[in-house]
Amino acid sequence: MHRSKVRIVEDALDANNTIARANRDDFDRAGVSVVNLMSAPGAGKTALLERALTGLAEDGVRVGVLEGDVAGSFDADRMADLHVPVTQLNTEKGFGGECHLDANMVRTALGALPLAELDLLIIENVGNLVCPAEFHVGADARIMVCSVTEGEDKPLKYPLMFRACELVIVNKIDLLPHLEYDIDRLEDNIAKANPDATTMRVSARTGEGIDTFRRWLIEVPTRTKAMA
Amino acid sequence: MHRSKVRIVEDALDANNTIARANRDDFDRAGVSVVNLMSAPGAGKTALLERALTGLAEDGVRVGVLEGDVAGSFDADRMADLHVPVTQLNTEKGFGGECHLDANMVRTALGALPLAELDLLIIENVGNLVCPAEFHVGADARIMVCSVTEGEDKPLKYPLMFRACELVIVNKIDLLPHLEYDIDRLEDNIAKANPDATTMRVSARTGEGIDTFRRWLIEVPTRTKAMA
Repeated sequence: MHRSKVRIVEDALDANNTIARANRDDFDRAGVSVVNLMSAPGAGKTALLERALTGLAEDGVRVGVLEGDVAGSFDADRMADLHVPVTQLNTEKGFGGECHLDANMVRTALGALPLAELDLLIIENVGNLVCPAEFHVGADARIMVCSVTEGEDKPLKYPLMFRACELVIVNKIDLLPHLEYDIDRLEDNIAKANPDATTMRVSARTGEGIDTFRRWLIEVPTRTKAMA
Repeated sequence: MHRSKVRIVEDALDANNTIARANRDDFDRAGVSVVNLMSAPGAGKTALLERALTGLAEDGVRVGVLEGDVAGSFDADRMADLHVPVTQLNTEKGFGGECHLDANMVRTALGALPLAELDLLIIENVGNLVCPAEFHVGADARIMVCSVTEGEDKPLKYPLMFRACELVIVNKIDLLPHLEYDIDRLEDNIAKANPDATTMRVSARTGEGIDTFRRWLIEVPTRTKAMA
């Protein structure tokens, strides 16, 4: 039973990769760079975007958001307040309550995305440190957000997620004075899991470090075109 | 493609329930009550157990822990320091990096558990707010830990997890003075998702509320026998 179970998972990942490539081709044709944003529940992905996306159009980057959630549209409603195009994708309805976005779910949403009007699409994945890292959706870059309230051991306990991302954002640093938390140990552990990852310390609440993150986001389309 | 995907998930859940019942029968025969402890990554399950389990044997409850993690034995090592029997179950090796424990994984670990020496077994699940709620493992009670750093909207975004648990522990309340967080709104949202859930406010760091949680744990075997 175990052997057949693993086979199903591998077949599913192969099928997913095929659809992810089709998504990528469609994004490329539309000239849209795509970022897959992942984290544990409550690490602050939405608050980070609220801080970073405001006024991005003035910097010459037209940004849209695809919100993935099991249920509800709480994050999409928050994003819509920023006057950026937002599309909600719920994994509960029709997808069986999935704990991640896969390429097919994103493909289902393509028609609802105003790709012609965008330079950068941010896909906010379901809050989960395991499966979202296993499913490509067709993105150019992958970012994870890791909060300082979550413990320094997370890169060792969830290594695939940390390995899968080019950028690791360490959020909620405004809480450091109130925690027994060794942020250097966290960054050592990130480097053990993924020596190539860029890390940034930010606070979505106070705005500290957000400028650095915004510059990184602004450069995604440039980097993508340089690689193409 | 979508239709066949859902069917596979349903078959898998049926097969899981059959094995969960076999686990439950084995636990019952051994006179062991079992708790399935779930949360998002970093909500503080292990710290909570470190606080609550110390000296439980003096209260007449012999407790053991089954630690579920994708990789590593960091939590098991912490538990072993408390001198309670600990068994580590990794979902990475042989299970393909699963984001949850299922009944078959727990069954695989049964032989390594000293059931004859236990009154209460706590299964610490993989940190994830979605899939662990879908997979029964044969437990008598389900607990979730929800940290006040995670946002008040979690019961609405991950309703199945909150619905699946008899007890919701709201952890890290020592951080409330440093957060813009409305704990009453969280508890209203928990009640919306699951009106029957018991909630407890605790701090694994300061020990506040831990006595109440320990009493709840001590009473699990009594409650289980009364229901049997």
